[in-house]
Amino acid sequence: MSEQLIYGTAYYYEYLPMDRMEEDFRMMTKAGFNTIRIAESTWSTWEPQDGVFDFTYLHRVLKAAGNHGLSVIVGTPTYAIPSWLAKKYPDILSDTHSGRCRYGARQNFDMTHPGYRFHAERIIRRLLEEVKGYDCVIGFQLDNETKPYDTCSEYAQKLFKEHLIEQYGTTDALNDKMGLAYWSNSIADWDDLPDVRGTINASFGGEYEAFQRSIVTEFLSWQRNILEEYRQPDQFVTHNFDFEWRLYSYGFQPEAEQFEASKALTIAGCDIYHPSEHALTGAEISFCGANAYGLKKSNYLVLETEAQGNFGWLPYPGQLRLQAFAQLASGAEGISYWHWHSIHNAVESYWKGVLSHDFSEGAVYQEAATIGKDFQRLSGKLIHLKKKNRIAIMVSSRSQTGLRWFPTAQQGAKPDHDYNDYLRWICDTCYRMNAEYDILNDTERDFSKYDVLILPVLYAAEEELIEAVRRYVENGGKIITTFKSFFADPVLKIYHDTQPHGLTKCLGVHYDRFTRPVDVELKSSVISLPEHCAVTDWMELLEDPDAEVLCTYDHPAWGGIPAVTRNTYGNGQAVYLGCCFDAAGLEAVLACLFREWGVFLPDSHYPLIIKKGISREGKLITYYLNFSREEQKFRSPCEGTELLQEESVSRDQELVLPPWGVKILETDI
Amino acid sequence: MSEQLIYGTAYYYEYLPMDRMEEDFRMMTKAGFNTIRIAESTWSTWEPQDGVFDFTYLHRVLKAAGNHGLSVIVGTPTYAIPSWLAKKYPDILSDTHSGRCRYGARQNFDMTHPGYRFHAERIIRRLLEEVKGYDCVIGFQLDNETKPYDTCSEYAQKLFKEHLIEQYGTTDALNDKMGLAYWSNSIADWDDLPDVRGTINASFGGEYEAFQRSIVTEFLSWQRNILEEYRQPDQFVTHNFDFEWRLYSYGFQPEAEQFEASKALTIAGCDIYHPSEHALTGAEISFCGANAYGLKKSNYLVLETEAQGNFGWLPYPGQLRLQAFAQLASGAEGISYWHWHSIHNAVESYWKGVLSHDFSEGAVYQEAATIGKDFQRLSGKLIHLKKKNRIAIMVSSRSQTGLRWFPTAQQGAKPDHDYNDYLRWICDTCYRMNAEYDILNDTERDFSKYDVLILPVLYAAEEELIEAVRRYVENGGKIITTFKSFFADPVLKIYHDTQPHGLTKCLGVHYDRFTRPVDVELKSSVISLPEHCAVTDWMELLEDPDAEVLCTYDHPAWGGIPAVTRNTYGNGQAVYLGCCFDAAGLEAVLACLFREWGVFLPDSHYPLIIKKGISREGKLITYYLNFSREEQKFRSPCEGTELLQEESVSRDQELVLPPWGVKILETDI
Amino acid sequence: MSEQLIYGTAYYYEYLPMDRMEEDFRMMTKAGFNTIRIAESTWSTWEPQDGVFDFTYLHRVLKAAGNHGLSVIVGTPTYAIPSWLAKKYPDILSDTHSGRCRYGARQNFDMTHPGYRFHAERIIRRLLEEVKGYDCVIGFQLDNETKPYDTCSEYAQKLFKEHLIEQYGTTDALNDKMGLAYWSNSIADWDDLPDVRGTINASFGGEYEAFQRSIVTEFLSWQRNILEEYRQPDQFVTHNFDFEWRLYSYGFQPEAEQFEASKALTIAGCDIYHPSEHALTGAEISFCGANAYGLKKSNYLVLETEAQGNFGWLPYPGQLRLQAFAQLASGAEGISYWHWHSIHNAVESYWKGVLSHDFSEGAVYQEAATIGKDFQRLSGKLIHLKKKNRIAIMVSSRSQTGLRWFPTAQQGAKPDHDYNDYLRWICDTCYRMNAEYDILNDTERDFSKYDVLILPVLYAAEEELIEAVRRYVENGGKIITTFKSFFADPVLKIYHDTQPHGLTKCLGVHYDRFTRPVDVELKSSVISLPEHCAVTDWMELLEDPDAEVLCTYDHPAWGGIPAVTRNTYGNGQAVYLGCCFDAAGLEAVLACLFREWGVFLPDSHYPLIIKKGISREGKLITYYLNFSREEQKFRSPCEGTELLQEESVSRDQELVLPPWGVKILETDI
Repeated sequence: MSEQLIYGTAYYYEYLPMDRMEEDFRMMTKAGFNTIRIAESTWSTWEPQDGVFDFTYLHRVLKAAGNHGLSVIVGTPTYAIPSWLAKKYPDILSDTHSGRCRYGARQNFDMTHPGYRFHAERIIRRLLEEVKGYDCVIGFQLDNETKPYDTCSEYAQKLFKEHLIEQYGTTDALNDKMGLAYWSNSIADWDDLPDVRGTINASFGGEYEAFQRSIVTEFLSWQRNILEEYRQPDQFVTHNFDFEWRLYSYGFQPEAEQFEASKALTIAGCDIYHPSEHALTGAEISFCGANAYGLKKSNYLVLETEAQGNFGWLPYPGQLRLQAFAQLASGAEGISYWHWHSIHNAVESYWKGVLSHDFSEGAVYQEAATIGKDFQRLSGKLIHLKKKNRIAIMVSSRSQTGLRWFPTAQQGAKPDHDYNDYLRWICDTCYRMNAEYDILNDTERDFSKYDVLILPVLYAAEEELIEAVRRYVENGGKIITTFKSFFADPVLKIYHDTQPHGLTKCLGVHYDRFTRPVDVELKSSVISLPEHCAVTDWMELLEDPDAEVLCTYDHPAWGGIPAVTRNTYGNGQAVYLGCCFDAAGLEAVLACLFREWGVFLPDSHYPLIIKKGISREGKLITYYLNFSREEQKFRSPCEGTELLQEESVSRDQELVLPPWGVKILETDI
Repeated sequence: MSEQLIYGTAYYYEYLPMDRMEEDFRMMTKAGFNTIRIAESTWSTWEPQDGVFDFTYLHRVLKAAGNHGLSVIVGTPTYAIPSWLAKKYPDILSDTHSGRCRYGARQNFDMTHPGYRFHAERIIRRLLEEVKGYDCVIGFQLDNETKPYDTCSEYAQKLFKEHLIEQYGTTDALNDKMGLAYWSNSIADWDDLPDVRGTINASFGGEYEAFQRSIVTEFLSWQRNILEEYRQPDQFVTHNFDFEWRLYSYGFQPEAEQFEASKALTIAGCDIYHPSEHALTGAEISFCGANAYGLKKSNYLVLETEAQGNFGWLPYPGQLRLQAFAQLASGAEGISYWHWHSIHNAVESYWKGVLSHDFSEGAVYQEAATIGKDFQRLSGKLIHLKKKNRIAIMVSSRSQTGLRWFPTAQQGAKPDHDYNDYLRWICDTCYRMNAEYDILNDTERDFSKYDVLILPVLYAAEEELIEAVRRYVENGGKIITTFKSFFADPVLKIYHDTQPHGLTKCLGVHYDRFTRPVDVELKSSVISLPEHCAVTDWMELLEDPDAEVLCTYDHPAWGGIPAVTRNTYGNGQAVYLGCCFDAAGLEAVLACLFREWGVFLPDSHYPLIIKKGISREGKLITYYLNFSREEQKFRSPCEGTELLQEESVSRDQELVLPPWGVKILETDI
Repeated sequence: MSEQLIYGTAYYYEYLPMDRMEEDFRMMTKAGFNTIRIAESTWSTWEPQDGVFDFTYLHRVLKAAGNHGLSVIVGTPTYAIPSWLAKKYPDILSDTHSGRCRYGARQNFDMTHPGYRFHAERIIRRLLEEVKGYDCVIGFQLDNETKPYDTCSEYAQKLFKEHLIEQYGTTDALNDKMGLAYWSNSIADWDDLPDVRGTINASFGGEYEAFQRSIVTEFLSWQRNILEEYRQPDQFVTHNFDFEWRLYSYGFQPEAEQFEASKALTIAGCDIYHPSEHALTGAEISFCGANAYGLKKSNYLVLETEAQGNFGWLPYPGQLRLQAFAQLASGAEGISYWHWHSIHNAVESYWKGVLSHDFSEGAVYQEAATIGKDFQRLSGKLIHLKKKNRIAIMVSSRSQTGLRWFPTAQQGAKPDHDYNDYLRWICDTCYRMNAEYDILNDTERDFSKYDVLILPVLYAAEEELIEAVRRYVENGGKIITTFKSFFADPVLKIYHDTQPHGLTKCLGVHYDRFTRPVDVELKSSVISLPEHCAVTDWMELLEDPDAEVLCTYDHPAWGGIPAVTRNTYGNGQAVYLGCCFDAAGLEAVLACLFREWGVFLPDSHYPLIIKKGISREGKLITYYLNFSREEQKFRSPCEGTELLQEESVSRDQELVLPPWGVKILETDI
């Protein structure tokens, strides 16, 4: 891995309205950019016709980049197929729940189609051959934002059937586990397995979604294996994972098993897009960063993020810098903007780049150049920042699937909130409290290095995980878990004994009733809750608690019933949140618990965000990030150096962050 | 018919995650349940492969039920087809307005498909053979919630064409009646009849909907004929009709002609699901009950209702009892919950049963057990309750279709309200006033037993009905009818003389203009209306009234124009509501009219609901139902017995209903 | 052209529920109607089977019309195909972005289908043969509201490919111009051109839309050529153009290039439907009228407008008259209602006509009769009203397409407003100020006859137009242009130099940043803006203005940046509105500019609308239209005659307009 923070941009020579590469590279180096990211979506450029190859542009870019001292990340061009390939195999376009895709968009084909694989392998090998000799190529990106594109093709469903046969052996075993008898869906012959797209069975449908996610894992691993025949040992392998998308990077990705898929990589990568201007909070940078850091439990690349980005994200003065350093503060090894220039045709013309359509050295370019300078100067101190978080939050694809099939809404109604909303409810509350956390996958079994393990809406949990959680508490760990957790097994069969399954002793509560809160508030005589703390989405009626009751419901019929409890079990404690409630109330609950548990929290609070890590040189690096238009002040906790201004700072010295400002303290540990 | 109120639950052995039937039946009988309902959706269990049958579970359940003294209602399993049948005939899945259904859900096939009929008949006959010897089987349910599933298959459209040829003889007759010349839709050859799905002609499209409804009638009759070869004379035949669904049972079912279809039954049946908790009003229990009672003008079975039901319907303490007795008060012969236990897989896992997923004797089970005890003790007094309502409300499928094609909205805009909203506007107002009513079909011609006949939005009315209504008024009857009534014939051809067609003399008004009310209020010098009584959806400008003007519009342009009128015609009176307005205003109008007409109304008003009937022993049974969280008081109108507490009550004695409480007075008539 | 104002109605004998033509014609002439419009949508009447013709009804109507002295406009019946034709060619139904249309609705076929053309030509010729001898036929309407019906058929796409080959020659030229390399969409073989429906490329998709519009032009021209073989020289040729539809005629039609298509006509025609009752403002009559007047720079026919129209448009007393004269005031040669009677079957039964369903002489008929009388009496004075507007507003189909692909919203989000909203923002503000305007197409190059040229959101502008605009200013013209103008070329390739392309010198401003305004207001020290004048949809950050800054933004980050500027360039002035803001603010800006520029504005303001023109006799005709429920007063600017009352009026005499009233002054110029 390079010892320089990566400061890059995507650069598609193919997209330019005229040739200005030399000028672009000159402007890049002038602004401190050191890397470009190329090739990922340009299959039709390299192979304009079936078997006809043309790498003229590739060599031109690689040579010029080398000449300008720019590093290059080469992406395999497999996520957007050329028109001739779609013409050759009309069934290569993904046949989804809503029918066959049309040609045009990226990410609309069937990765299980043999024709796709044949042609993808050929273009990958041809491209890698061409790239071989170039020293400027520092790493490779396998495909881009890979997802299964909801393929429900015959190829895919045949693989799924094979998976089920291997998993269950007999149709009876399948029927029993998935409860297929319901509405006459059971089968007695594997050939009677229906098209997955009509199913009303969450176990069957959910298993297909898990299978779809496994296609991503298999596909990236397949690309990695090809790449290994070409790659130099010092060239990294990454992938640009994306997040659940709500016009910005919102939450845990439901369409890939990123933790599994990351095994094909040497370093994790992702893209992070987030609201800006008045709506810039840093929450997405922090959440997505933690997710990416978790993938390989190490630093990661932000392979795409916004310069000007989507309409309405034009950074206020200072915001572009704040964003860049917030990424580093979360553990990024650097950032790469999408895109260098703003595109002049096609769908993303208004997803603007470092440069506007006029290629001028505008305000955004100029602020970017200050970042480039700082990255150059401070790479040695800021790279490889190691996080030492005491809190872990668990994510779970199976639980996410479970909540999609069984949301917190009436059957047939659109839910107000989903898995990622509840995950963000927890994560964003921690973020605002400056309680940094790691994100763990639900395959994790050893939590001993953490003080606190939070398990939000862990709906689908296998017995081994439940036992690991129980043992963690018994051995002194603290857990916080929520409503709709430990309710079903990984195939979404609801456990048929007392809920929460396997943890009633540990948690000291159980329940068999839950409902939708209407005019319900949370009350507590133990915790100082904000006034009128509303219970919002789901409430379980906890019964016969052996646990300490922290909060109860306030309601004519359900009043006094426990809502939040804490149980001492073995050497640890287990907290249960039986409902979703106002974030301010959650903050009060967490603050109380963290305080009692001795989890260190800074005095500061959002919008003054504090993030820490250990530098390569063993120093404590602390980022102070002001996510507001008001000036923020803080006192240095000890003697050290403010790196951006290169000023020494004495203990207790008051430092002032301007609006959207950032400071970085380097101190001894 | 049994002399015990049915207290049952659906019980699907096939759906259990483990074998616990003996324990379930023990828990049922302990709680006073006397009936289970089985078999209806489990075709794939009985016939796991084409022609391979396995009734092991059926016999196990029937034997155990018999041993435990439980009665059994056996449903024919035809409303959910097995996967192998869908594989055998790919076109068996319903081809609808929105395309071919996928396999998975229930109720998604084409009932006119010959292959469906062949296999349905075979499984029905095989099941009935197996069931033959069991004494515990008290009745049969034909299919379940049968609807045409919007079949537009070639089979169905061929039948429709034959229906049209029979009906109209020539294409010219069809063109003329339906106005097919419009936009060049007329045909000169029956083979040019287009696919119904694209039509813009309400007469053509509406007739197809009527044809679709007739499929239901024919199908149930066909099943009944098969059943007659197997049934014992004392075994009843019912069907589980459902209502227009808005996440709960909302209104008159548009997809079946239930009054016609009920001819295949010995007793009507239905399912009633309704909001609960804070939203429990009893209005659905009352409306749907009246609808079900009307089908065969007699008592009916509530074959499905909720225990815990949909998310957010967890009954407050007392509500489950209130609901049960409210069903009896409307004329139900008993109720059966859906489902015994909460299901552990598939789509309805959160439509919870008497038991939660943990099978424990939870709070809901415990309240259900008190109902079971009361039903056992009081069956002799509460069964066969005969209603003697003085008010009748007419429903009309053709009018409902008419309002769907021509709603109270701008052409091209989504209407705010529809047929069922206006029907419920009338029915719910009567309900809140404790004015009990019968529901009549528009095929009814003799209304002489009623004091008042209400005809809401009777858009499509045939001449014979109009004449019957006119004669009823002439002979002393009172009618109340509304805007958008008697406007078109049953084929939705608008009558081309003065509106309301055929009743201008009887009503003493006519109109040719109507519009959408914006900032219009209702005014009256005759009736004490609530302040600012808004005209909401539709307003007709009534002209030259011979009738008494009860209300006028208040508006800068339309002010003073009559809105509500009353005409004396022959020996009767005819009231016309020319617009839809606030329900409180409607209540004022109806109260005034009922008072003048001497229709008896109790002093009480919602939330204290009063329902009456005559018991088998000739006593007057009066239910007092408190649909609120506040205590309600009332005075006993005469000496009698309160049946639940088994206490005698003196005349004028004050009785107190706790929140969500119920009392039942038995008195002499 | 007739020297009588046309006062007509559509009359479809075929749609009558009984024969009452004689009575209808008697009622028409009694009410002053002089024209009927027939035949346009009744193909199945004339040709009930393939090649079988029956014109009985046609001759009956033409003879009777002649006898009653009614003129007839004959429409070719090609916009609604008979069922047999759809059966003959299943692929004749339009294959659109959302799949193949079903038979039933009008306007759902593929105009590029050879079978359609063959049969359309045959029925046109046969109809025109039949019509030949009738003197009462004053003109023809080619088809009706012709649009491409989103045809994406193989026929259409083949033509499109030929168009591209002709336009671009090589695939490389196409790739470059359209930027097809984006997401691997470039092709190297014309046969690899993908189905247009999946494209994510605005240049490719937008060009297809332009091609679709050209189908309309070609089709009407093709019909005109056929017609020329039959037409008498004094018979006019028109077409009924419609507008972008939002349940009423809202804006510039995106699916036809009406200015081009009008070359096939001798007189423009259109239909104008608008809200009525409380929502009657006259804005649509004015905007659509200006659009229609612009098509051939002359008077036009309103071939359809509402009598009672859609539900909720029942005219208040006086409104029908006001509407009729407002149409004349905009330059209409007369109006024709749709439809004579209200229809008794099919989809438009509630789009009511002059008569209600009962055919009685109701209130609407009676008010219509007063219009008929006035038209008869005043035709000589009111016909051929010539407009002499000093302001022109440019419309542009290519820009409209551009704004649809790149709206003022986040990528992926639904925009709040579109091209027509911004066009109406300008036009309606002018309307309220009584600033009459012409509408020009973007093919116009000579603006010298206008004082002011307004170019709203002229997103896609070719170099020649830009140069013409620049020259116009240089030579003394005044322009007002807005945000999102001159940004891309006609193929939607964004110009890659400083924006606004080619006009930075002329406008004296440039920008490379824009964003979504959130809590931004407009401030000015030059113009008296209303308080809190909100910037609503889009804001450009104007830089280094050489121009005078009229307004700036008020915002914490963007405060002080220029928002509205005025530049003196050559002998003219160029005003730039860098954002969309409250209409009241726009009015303040325009009033200030118009005043300074000496553009005459009346003192009056909406709801008192004033419209002028020069009569055939060279007099000034001034309409005073009161679009409110309050009385309005004004003073006559000079001596003259009020034509409706036939009263002479002295200078400065106060005249009173009753609610929804109208007066027409004839004065010397």
